[in-house]
Amino acid sequence: MAAEGLTEAERLSGFMPGPRAALASGTGPLDGLTFAAKDLYDVAGAPTTYGNPDWARTHPVPAATATAVLALAEAGARFVGKTKTVELAFGMAGENIWYGTPLNPRAPGRFPGGSSCGSASAVALGEADIALGSDTGGSVRIPASYCGIFGIRPTWGAVSLVGARALAPSYDTAGWFAARASVLRRAGEALLPEGGEGPLGPLLLVGEAWDNADPAVAAALRPAAGALESLLGPALSVSLVPEGLPALYEAYRRAQAEEAWATLGDWITATSPAFGPGVGERFAMSRDLPPGLGAAGRAFRQGFRRRLLGLLGGGAVLAYPTSPLISPPLEASQAEQLRVRERTIGVTAISGLAGLPEVSIPAAQAEGAPVGLSILAAPGRDRALLALAERLAAALELST
Amino acid sequence: MAAEGLTEAERLSGFMPGPRAALASGTGPLDGLTFAAKDLYDVAGAPTTYGNPDWARTHPVPAATATAVLALAEAGARFVGKTKTVELAFGMAGENIWYGTPLNPRAPGRFPGGSSCGSASAVALGEADIALGSDTGGSVRIPASYCGIFGIRPTWGAVSLVGARALAPSYDTAGWFAARASVLRRAGEALLPEGGEGPLGPLLLVGEAWDNADPAVAAALRPAAGALESLLGPALSVSLVPEGLPALYEAYRRAQAEEAWATLGDWITATSPAFGPGVGERFAMSRDLPPGLGAAGRAFRQGFRRRLLGLLGGGAVLAYPTSPLISPPLEASQAEQLRVRERTIGVTAISGLAGLPEVSIPAAQAEGAPVGLSILAAPGRDRALLALAERLAAALELST
Repeated sequence: MAAEGLTEAERLSGFMPGPRAALASGTGPLDGLTFAAKDLYDVAGAPTTYGNPDWARTHPVPAATATAVLALAEAGARFVGKTKTVELAFGMAGENIWYGTPLNPRAPGRFPGGSSCGSASAVALGEADIALGSDTGGSVRIPASYCGIFGIRPTWGAVSLVGARALAPSYDTAGWFAARASVLRRAGEALLPEGGEGPLGPLLLVGEAWDNADPAVAAALRPAAGALESLLGPALSVSLVPEGLPALYEAYRRAQAEEAWATLGDWITATSPAFGPGVGERFAMSRDLPPGLGAAGRAFRQGFRRRLLGLLGGGAVLAYPTSPLISPPLEASQAEQLRVRERTIGVTAISGLAGLPEVSIPAAQAEGAPVGLSILAAPGRDRALLALAERLAAALELST
Repeated sequence: MAAEGLTEAERLSGFMPGPRAALASGTGPLDGLTFAAKDLYDVAGAPTTYGNPDWARTHPVPAATATAVLALAEAGARFVGKTKTVELAFGMAGENIWYGTPLNPRAPGRFPGGSSCGSASAVALGEADIALGSDTGGSVRIPASYCGIFGIRPTWGAVSLVGARALAPSYDTAGWFAARASVLRRAGEALLPEGGEGPLGPLLLVGEAWDNADPAVAAALRPAAGALESLLGPALSVSLVPEGLPALYEAYRRAQAEEAWATLGDWITATSPAFGPGVGERFAMSRDLPPGLGAAGRAFRQGFRRRLLGLLGGGAVLAYPTSPLISPPLEASQAEQLRVRERTIGVTAISGLAGLPEVSIPAAQAEGAPVGLSILAAPGRDRALLALAERLAAALELST
């Protein structure tokens, strides 16, 4: 099976081709809303492809539905189908050669962002009010930014990943998208544990993340940072990574690669699956990580996490461009994509390494493409962050 | 009465001239240590001069002893006398024309720093192990830095000021000095409320306070900041005052001046006391503050305090040079002193406005004079800060 057997509509859709998986809904606070789920969440009776035909072929059809999917359905949201993912969730552009790369409806001709590309595309097109994704190193935040919608990477561990496929478990989180801030928040009420509300502040602009952003992206997002200041008081500026963002990328890459290979290496070795461009190379890099580098990455992560918890424990909010760059064009080479990836992960690794919740707000456009502003807070403050995102959306006259 | 009637030894001493006030001691954890108290703390049966003969003349000899003085005596420290203060605690150089300006034994020819000048001088000379001072806008921290000893401004409200004279009550704190870090901490155990221990971090270097410091001062203190990094992990850098340090000075000056006049204006108006150079002018500035400026200062303070609490609530530690400059020479003109004062208060107002505990550590010398490194944390974390100061002193091979 490959994308060339599909219709143009199937190739460009955020949803998986073929018959839609089905699931019963309850009645509750999400009545009247629809939702989709990235095809790494199990829905009983439907195959979970994890974005790769060989994965689907070598794994049984699940008998149980993932906990997060059930939580949305039980809260009253109506399930409308499974959405495309980058193969094994290991990629940032949002490409899938087997099922088709979903359209980025807010920037046609550019990638939708990955790995939760189908979920972002479906929400941006209005085909689902809520879509579950997963975020290991940016897989919700980047497609949210590229597609001009809201997205949250929750506190690590806050939302169940039972019944979801793993990539690097100590980084994996169950995130979600919505086109409206209030819907993002309401989905959180069904998915998140109780607590974490209450006032946030002060606002901290992370200097190196602003400096690392393309000047057009940073300039486009400055007014949104100003609106945050009206809500939280004048921003302080902070530097989080005295070692520089490349050190963050290196630490993330090493520790995450070690875990990704530990999680999926046996299957890859046993199956020799066919992969699209870049995916196999990324796993090969993970496999060939020199001994000791994973441990060095984990040690860095411990120190970084401790620093961030101390910084944010009083309620402080970090803010910076979700992605330093707008989505690359579909023609971008693998080498160009790698450069984008390295520069992007230097920033997305902040919450990835520290386990912080992060909400991306579709605050602006640069060169005609969407760019998101991220707000982050201490672990467990997801609900407060979602409330702040809603207030900021109102201030910016976005879809609340 | 004026200093010219005194012997040279009396003029240069940190202690008040004349017979030493006496007080009984108990037995406890401070057994074997001596202490002194700035002459704005009452000791039953001895006059409280508040640094000014007209104050002494117009106020009765107190019948009760200040709570903080009693606390040290009851913990076993032996009281050795009252120490000189700047008149009405309103001045930073540490001058007193009536009782003599105490010697700065670590930088003879330079001011000891004020207003707790006598306490700092006595401790630096080894004439008391502990000396109580008070700190409204820097009156413990600055003489600690100038005289090369340890000093703490505790969390606002944490140590009783009952039986102590007020200058600006919402800024006034009861601080103390010691030449050894362990003695500073042990005095805290007798004076501070329970609690506040536990780990601190991350370390935040306050960019504008380092930039505001004389380059020689900043360079001299960098190794001490490095030693703090070995204890707490790599420092992050933060900017606390997007409006710039002069805005902090202005806010402090306005709100503090309004309070100082509200506290002492009636007595000054009724008594027309004789004041030494600068003191009367500072009170006249307070009296003549245009209406509305005090309120603007207080509003700024509210926002600043909220920002700092959010930043430090998770355990973060701020660090920067206690004073941007070494002590000025005794020949410095009033105009030169005013310039020093403005630049210094731009930094000392950080804890003053936000009510934070701050410990100054005699970490280095610049141009042959002592300079202190300050560490600050969230309100209530005084005990943790004193423990950290002791660890840093050990790392720097200072007197622990």
